[in-house]
Amino acid sequence: MPCKLIFRQLFEKESSTYTYLLADSLHPDKPALLIDPVDRTVDRDLALVKELGLKLIYAINTHVHADHVTGSGLIKTKVPGVKSIISKASNAKADLFVEPGDKIYIGDIYLEVRATPGHTLGCLTYVTGDGVNQPQPRMAFTGDALLIRGCGRTDFQGGSSDKLYDSVHSQIFTLPKDTLVYPAHDYKGFTVSTVGEEMLYNPRLSKDKETFKNIMQNLNLSYPKMIDIAVPSNMVCGLQETKSDL
Amino acid sequence: MPCKLIFRQLFEKESSTYTYLLADSLHPDKPALLIDPVDRTVDRDLALVKELGLKLIYAINTHVHADHVTGSGLIKTKVPGVKSIISKASNAKADLFVEPGDKIYIGDIYLEVRATPGHTLGCLTYVTGDGVNQPQPRMAFTGDALLIRGCGRTDFQGGSSDKLYDSVHSQIFTLPKDTLVYPAHDYKGFTVSTVGEEMLYNPRLSKDKETFKNIMQNLNLSYPKMIDIAVPSNMVCGLQETKSDL
Repeated sequence: MPCKLIFRQLFEKESSTYTYLLADSLHPDKPALLIDPVDRTVDRDLALVKELGLKLIYAINTHVHADHVTGSGLIKTKVPGVKSIISKASNAKADLFVEPGDKIYIGDIYLEVRATPGHTLGCLTYVTGDGVNQPQPRMAFTGDALLIRGCGRTDFQGGSSDKLYDSVHSQIFTLPKDTLVYPAHDYKGFTVSTVGEEMLYNPRLSKDKETFKNIMQNLNLSYPKMIDIAVPSNMVCGLQETKSDL
Repeated sequence: MPCKLIFRQLFEKESSTYTYLLADSLHPDKPALLIDPVDRTVDRDLALVKELGLKLIYAINTHVHADHVTGSGLIKTKVPGVKSIISKASNAKADLFVEPGDKIYIGDIYLEVRATPGHTLGCLTYVTGDGVNQPQPRMAFTGDALLIRGCGRTDFQGGSSDKLYDSVHSQIFTLPKDTLVYPAHDYKGFTVSTVGEEMLYNPRLSKDKETFKNIMQNLNLSYPKMIDIAVPSNMVCGLQETKSDL
């Protein structure tokens, strides 16, 4: 069966963020969603949506980002009808709140919602559906829970290395090994990995839990330079000044 | 038939260069090639080759780059047996020289060589094979001949806007419209396009030839900052000092 997914990975250089565009090409409306859009690249993303003839219906975040301002609020002002989505556990503003086990449909393609707290309390991983009419191999949009050969820090926003270890091992490493891992960031120029690869070669998460916690406790990272701007803004879809529009 | 291709797109931030790793996963040796490796990311690329259990056999360039030093010579010093490949028309050094119509095999998967001069005289586009046991849709590695919504400049290294227009229209725009376009660079965060998209939306190459030539003549670009280092170096596989190793 031919894959019906239109898929684009888009990069924002300043914060090394990946935004993902997914759409169902066989549905007459070509319904689409964006995962983790960035405010400064919204115009690029919306131009692409238009050129591909897609109908954007959701702007989704994996979590409340600390390193860039989400584009979801801005998208809503530019494309009427788009709904923003985030986890209920994030306590952020959005049109729709999702919980573990929920499914987000665009046409016949869906994303399954998995709770992967640890980087933040409300972090989600979105995984494409299980079934012959869904993309093969499956694709996991892991946000900052699992990065390629790395993971998000656990020292802010309700982070917990203990929780993150359990999240990745129970919710991501249990997926088929050929599942494609698409993270929210990459700093070394990688674009994709697989579950099997990360189980073997992730220098943090391939270790036992105590070693992992020890690694995370000793990262000695500096204070995130964007956090005091990005987090308050992202709690309200990236548009602090226009709360009434949300 | 399942796709047998292992494929990775890798990004080098400094020069915004994409390197591509392709391998045949079903062949017992998992033979692999790299297209347009960059000297400064060779260690990253070779670590990935090793982790994926691949046997690197070719380091290929689309052309003599002016903006970064190729990694092909360095790879040859680190992985014995790897052969460097470039076009005969480039007049650069390499182990193997290819011409239009040649096929480069890794296991059962092959790249077809197409001449796409215009950015430089020796520019090639490598296209995955035509057939049910080849990747579907086809993939075109276009170097600087065709960029996403753009193209390489034509004012250096034997460049010609007249030739570039003919190259893209006769060698790339004649491919199936769903052919994936993977360029050597992107500066806006795009990772892939399609032939159909570029035929419609490329702001330069969707125009008629006279308009295109006029656009290219009036770009007013500054002198490429790396050209005096990169070009002489890339003429000898990126390793000027150790010509005897090549």
